[in-house]
Amino acid sequence: MPKNYWGEIKDPVHGYVYITEAEKTIIDSYPVQRLHRLRQLAGAEYVYPGANHTRFEHSVGVMYLAGRVAENPYISQIVSEEEAETVKLAGLLHDVGHGPFSHVFEHLLIKELDKTHEDITSWIINKSELKDTISKAGYRPEDIAKLAVGKLHKPKKAFLDQIISSTVDVDKQDFIVRDTHHTGAEYGYIDIFRLIQNLDVLGENLAIELGALSALESLIIARIESFKSIYFHRVGRSAQIMLAMAMEQANEELGLTRFKTPEQYLAMDDYTAYAMLKNCKKSSGIIRNLERRKLLKCAYEKTFYEKDTMISNIFSRETYRKQLQSEIAKEAKVQIATVIIDVPTVPSVPYEHSVLTESMEIPVFYKTPEGRKIPQRLSEISKIFETLKGFINILRVYTDEENREKVSSAATKILGRTPTSARISY
Amino acid sequence: MPKNYWGEIKDPVHGYVYITEAEKTIIDSYPVQRLHRLRQLAGAEYVYPGANHTRFEHSVGVMYLAGRVAENPYISQIVSEEEAETVKLAGLLHDVGHGPFSHVFEHLLIKELDKTHEDITSWIINKSELKDTISKAGYRPEDIAKLAVGKLHKPKKAFLDQIISSTVDVDKQDFIVRDTHHTGAEYGYIDIFRLIQNLDVLGENLAIELGALSALESLIIARIESFKSIYFHRVGRSAQIMLAMAMEQANEELGLTRFKTPEQYLAMDDYTAYAMLKNCKKSSGIIRNLERRKLLKCAYEKTFYEKDTMISNIFSRETYRKQLQSEIAKEAKVQIATVIIDVPTVPSVPYEHSVLTESMEIPVFYKTPEGRKIPQRLSEISKIFETLKGFINILRVYTDEENREKVSSAATKILGRTPTSARISY
Amino acid sequence: MPKNYWGEIKDPVHGYVYITEAEKTIIDSYPVQRLHRLRQLAGAEYVYPGANHTRFEHSVGVMYLAGRVAENPYISQIVSEEEAETVKLAGLLHDVGHGPFSHVFEHLLIKELDKTHEDITSWIINKSELKDTISKAGYRPEDIAKLAVGKLHKPKKAFLDQIISSTVDVDKQDFIVRDTHHTGAEYGYIDIFRLIQNLDVLGENLAIELGALSALESLIIARIESFKSIYFHRVGRSAQIMLAMAMEQANEELGLTRFKTPEQYLAMDDYTAYAMLKNCKKSSGIIRNLERRKLLKCAYEKTFYEKDTMISNIFSRETYRKQLQSEIAKEAKVQIATVIIDVPTVPSVPYEHSVLTESMEIPVFYKTPEGRKIPQRLSEISKIFETLKGFINILRVYTDEENREKVSSAATKILGRTPTSARISY
Amino acid sequence: MPKNYWGEIKDPVHGYVYITEAEKTIIDSYPVQRLHRLRQLAGAEYVYPGANHTRFEHSVGVMYLAGRVAENPYISQIVSEEEAETVKLAGLLHDVGHGPFSHVFEHLLIKELDKTHEDITSWIINKSELKDTISKAGYRPEDIAKLAVGKLHKPKKAFLDQIISSTVDVDKQDFIVRDTHHTGAEYGYIDIFRLIQNLDVLGENLAIELGALSALESLIIARIESFKSIYFHRVGRSAQIMLAMAMEQANEELGLTRFKTPEQYLAMDDYTAYAMLKNCKKSSGIIRNLERRKLLKCAYEKTFYEKDTMISNIFSRETYRKQLQSEIAKEAKVQIATVIIDVPTVPSVPYEHSVLTESMEIPVFYKTPEGRKIPQRLSEISKIFETLKGFINILRVYTDEENREKVSSAATKILGRTPTSARISY
Repeated sequence: MPKNYWGEIKDPVHGYVYITEAEKTIIDSYPVQRLHRLRQLAGAEYVYPGANHTRFEHSVGVMYLAGRVAENPYISQIVSEEEAETVKLAGLLHDVGHGPFSHVFEHLLIKELDKTHEDITSWIINKSELKDTISKAGYRPEDIAKLAVGKLHKPKKAFLDQIISSTVDVDKQDFIVRDTHHTGAEYGYIDIFRLIQNLDVLGENLAIELGALSALESLIIARIESFKSIYFHRVGRSAQIMLAMAMEQANEELGLTRFKTPEQYLAMDDYTAYAMLKNCKKSSGIIRNLERRKLLKCAYEKTFYEKDTMISNIFSRETYRKQLQSEIAKEAKVQIATVIIDVPTVPSVPYEHSVLTESMEIPVFYKTPEGRKIPQRLSEISKIFETLKGFINILRVYTDEENREKVSSAATKILGRTPTSARISY
Repeated sequence: MPKNYWGEIKDPVHGYVYITEAEKTIIDSYPVQRLHRLRQLAGAEYVYPGANHTRFEHSVGVMYLAGRVAENPYISQIVSEEEAETVKLAGLLHDVGHGPFSHVFEHLLIKELDKTHEDITSWIINKSELKDTISKAGYRPEDIAKLAVGKLHKPKKAFLDQIISSTVDVDKQDFIVRDTHHTGAEYGYIDIFRLIQNLDVLGENLAIELGALSALESLIIARIESFKSIYFHRVGRSAQIMLAMAMEQANEELGLTRFKTPEQYLAMDDYTAYAMLKNCKKSSGIIRNLERRKLLKCAYEKTFYEKDTMISNIFSRETYRKQLQSEIAKEAKVQIATVIIDVPTVPSVPYEHSVLTESMEIPVFYKTPEGRKIPQRLSEISKIFETLKGFINILRVYTDEENREKVSSAATKILGRTPTSARISY
Repeated sequence: MPKNYWGEIKDPVHGYVYITEAEKTIIDSYPVQRLHRLRQLAGAEYVYPGANHTRFEHSVGVMYLAGRVAENPYISQIVSEEEAETVKLAGLLHDVGHGPFSHVFEHLLIKELDKTHEDITSWIINKSELKDTISKAGYRPEDIAKLAVGKLHKPKKAFLDQIISSTVDVDKQDFIVRDTHHTGAEYGYIDIFRLIQNLDVLGENLAIELGALSALESLIIARIESFKSIYFHRVGRSAQIMLAMAMEQANEELGLTRFKTPEQYLAMDDYTAYAMLKNCKKSSGIIRNLERRKLLKCAYEKTFYEKDTMISNIFSRETYRKQLQSEIAKEAKVQIATVIIDVPTVPSVPYEHSVLTESMEIPVFYKTPEGRKIPQRLSEISKIFETLKGFINILRVYTDEENREKVSSAATKILGRTPTSARISY
Repeated sequence: MPKNYWGEIKDPVHGYVYITEAEKTIIDSYPVQRLHRLRQLAGAEYVYPGANHTRFEHSVGVMYLAGRVAENPYISQIVSEEEAETVKLAGLLHDVGHGPFSHVFEHLLIKELDKTHEDITSWIINKSELKDTISKAGYRPEDIAKLAVGKLHKPKKAFLDQIISSTVDVDKQDFIVRDTHHTGAEYGYIDIFRLIQNLDVLGENLAIELGALSALESLIIARIESFKSIYFHRVGRSAQIMLAMAMEQANEELGLTRFKTPEQYLAMDDYTAYAMLKNCKKSSGIIRNLERRKLLKCAYEKTFYEKDTMISNIFSRETYRKQLQSEIAKEAKVQIATVIIDVPTVPSVPYEHSVLTESMEIPVFYKTPEGRKIPQRLSEISKIFETLKGFINILRVYTDEENREKVSSAATKILGRTPTSARISY
């Protein structure tokens, strides 16, 4: 039981989450309660009708898992009580900077203001009512603001940042399991508690004892399968692209990126943004189509895996995408605006997780019978890891229903034959 | 496999739902797609953060279960292929008449227009674009409009209505299991496929073979526990009452009940209504409180079970409630508007399911070794059923946080001592 | 994390169970490891093919839940570290006294030696190698021997016994959920962690805060439905009766109840007993039938609920059962031995849990805002409890397949018409 | 509903399995009922206490999945009703040839009689009472005997064999999911129904439409993780090796491989074999240790992946293993018999699934919009598959507890340094 136990929250994934009085005051604040109105997977409902969960529920889950890490047999010996609570609160608040439709809005944030949702997260923790609430609860807002985005950089304690932000962080652990529960996609039932139980440090870095190797591999694979089946799903992406287009086209009129204060930013959520986009002439047509499931159709698709980011880099440059778009449109004899190039690896695409598998190693080790930790190279030990490290690039060409065949032929001519591929779920 | 199999929808509760081309055209229509923006349990997220599922997902589930009933070993022998499909489509469409925040809006519908969401459901199926879509798909809109609310009254086939609307209908079967999955409340894991497999008819009525008695009892109990733990939860009700108050106060200005056409009605959903209520001066204060989890507090609560509706009838009369309200306010020395009487059994309360357990019998039977069906009285066979039939009445007095103690004392004085009761979940 | 954390056991129901060095030495002892060869539900596999779980897995689960109770916010304040560990070990060892096929053997134990499996449990803890192992681990065998059967009677700490043995004990909590997981019966998904979190004491007795009322009701109901659907299932009982008959008939030759030392007793398990019964001429015919699923058939069945034990008392007297048996056989014109009367409430029947629902009250209370605990009468607060308290009696007449109809008619004539009832599962 | 629907079996994994009269007669036969007494994962209970499920339950599951394949939208169009039922029955009977402790006994079968459990399966279907039972049910025993081991070789219908025996057969589909359910290992929740729905044929071979690529990859990975975490688990293998040693040492006396008739073979099961081994002087010492969890300890372990079988081939030769054993024993100065070399890839090792991932391709294809099937090379499309195809070889050296350190040092000296590796579960 936590000290100052206040009560519990029933989570469909982790069961009862016991919280303290201090945590409750922060959870009840406006910036956290607002997360009830930010869906975790905007657009995914067109594929998985059950995908309606929110960032609120996810944030509570991340806080819970952060707490579990902090009390495991190894980490618990090297963190103070205050550090443990700071990690939990950083987990709770790591997503407060998200805007309407989460990563869809981030696309606009980056483009217009050169900011990510993480920049906003720190800003909000430091400048909104959260600052006071956290202080009153007895913690340091400025530390939490940094730790929530994995940048506390506490001397000799890099692992604190890595609990919140790394290849095996509690954010990923939570969303993979939670997204599976609500979508029914069944790729993400992984043994996160084995992983958590085997987290330790090497030097100052978070590391994994090899007893949890299978759980670690499962996490990496589940993440990739989840990207392919949920986050980068052809149909879900289509809806997200349409939302992103609606926002871009309406932005000048609606001023979505003209916020000055945290309060102005936080006034936007899925509900209010949706109503604005529906009422704005610039975007109402797209919304109209979304509401009738008239989605952009995928006319061409190719997936390729790369060890480095070269290809992604090429496609991330707008000029190149524009040129490809114009070539295909010309070949297909359709209007340029009808052809949409989607390359979800690159940062300009509305996905924070666009880089799937870091090229960096995950620190792992085994213990000698005497208890000495011997570092290992994961890529030597795990063939699965060695294979999967690198990047998944998906190149897709979308267009509207009526031009699908023409654009498909044109894209195939220019880009090479590739499966028009199967219907995947609804 | 269905004939004209088109593809599948992945449902987190039932797994793959295989659908036909015809079903797809209806699912993709605006009135059905709109259900993506109507949450199943508005207000419940304050208790169960995972309770974000929508009426879309539920409606697909109800269609699926209706199909399972139609193909069971007994029902399949007495329904035509067309009837079977009509039942499925009626299941799919049974909720298209819901308004923003579902039962919360129904409260207004009843009060202002003397209509329920079921009246609206039939109206929409008959008068919106659904009419054409259904006709083109080869089915009869007018039949589906009646069956969707359990009022087809086909000669000698009363059971068709009862599949959609009765004590054991597929609507209840779906929502009990689904609400459990997404909330994590764990009261609703019941064996619906045993129930479905043992549905048959007695005369023309839907009846249950006693081999499924345990499953039937479990359904009845799960429903009651779900009411107590989810639908009538003290905190969830508080949020719903606040939403209902916001709607009532803003209605004159916003004209929520001034719709003339199905299209006008269907333009309203959780998203648009929320944005309107947030922006309207009459309701923005309440929304402000909801957004900070400053909910009405329960100052008094008493649950009582009754075989008849007498007590409910008393409380359902506004004059009596007003009088009670004024007495308590006077005793507590607070303003009348600060005291809210909530009696969730009565129809004026935003709950269609206000009557928990019908006093009517559910037809059950056993089969002789020769296959003759011998009708039984369920209340004689099932002590659980005999006990539970009747009504749950909950009388609650809500007020704001600062007046809680005063109102609590006053209500206790007037209504008698009763547990101030425990914190139930978040 | 427990102090002296040794490692974990992966349980399919509760997840990781973390254990200490001391616990490991006791778990690895012969008497506990032997539980791997005692199935939890001997006979149930004829109905539920998945029902193969063992008392080992259940015992680890009970230890785990006992630990959860001991660390809840209220109990943790009134138990010492030593008491907490003693409760855990008592949970682990509560079933070490079971014999082959568990309750089936207990039937013989009672009849021949007037002992229950609980008497044997205490004997084994005190007299087998467990005594030394427990002492070396630093705990008191004699205390654990008493507590394992709920009879420690520690002054002012009655609740310690009740954690292990009462209406809401951790034994029941574990087996209801576990039996559901492995059988797939779906009646037992209950919210045991809400229950555990709300356990407290009234005076010195274990009591439940009313915030967990729904969870408590669910436990009571799940238990009853589990009895009807699993433990007292017509077909499973048939297999158990046959095993019991085999044991009785072979006992003289095999000397199953002639053990003198714990070691002799513990040498018997499902595996060795099965092989002995198969090879013994007296019992091999019954085993032959069991191995071909030629089970006794139920020719008559009647369930009745009683507030007191009068009817059970009548049926528990062998003379009365013998007389009924002879009357039916005479009427049916079959041999007496062909007619078997089964009345699973009474202690002579192989079920420890024959009494379903105690007539005694379960202590419950609510807390005032000031924290005072106000005791309540559960039967006044919970209509479900009030109804269900009492006894389920099932009177069944079994016979072999060929005489089924004759015996059925005869029993009906003598005992009154009753459903021959439906096929329930395989 | 199947024609001639008889009733249902409740399976904890797949839910209700509806069966016909004919299927029931075969299920109730002695050879199938005997599977209740053959555990699926003998030895695994030392790691996963929940791993007590039997081959009966698995066989019913395989029959169910075989039926699901036969009724999918593509396969259903190319199989006759009789073929469909034959595939189901072959699925039901595919494991009837297993002996006590399944693969452990197979080790002896191969060594002494040069037979696998599959040879025995065909023999039993053709020569035991099953022959008559199947004929009476209206099917052809000789066909089922071949199909049950994937060797029907029906002209132009190779896919029939492949449903039962191939990389994606229903046997693997069932055991991966079922083993996960009962162990709690959490690596095997895969989307088998997407896989099944996307099975089709290319030419006459079973093939997978690429819409199920993620499900296919998940199956492959789940299988590998299951091998590492369950089937080849260090501790579970230890128990299996001990059982295998017990059988070998007692075989001359007990005549386990001296059966002449199917009836003699089928008289052996886990229960009878265990009792025999416990009572036989040659093996009782090993059983004594097993019953006290005094298992062989792993002193050295190395895992390596190979594209071809060269290394496996080397280790599979007993002379080489003997030599390695003797070298290590000499270096460690312990008796030769104390050192056990375990190399689970090779057929002489008690595992049918010793070859993890076939080097052959799994046929996959995509469909053009016009419905043409375009074959693809899976290894070009799926990087995961390309990586994983090949063989997992694990080389382990076991010894008893007291010699662990000496043997560990000696093995390390001879075989090279490698992690002594972490505690994995209990």
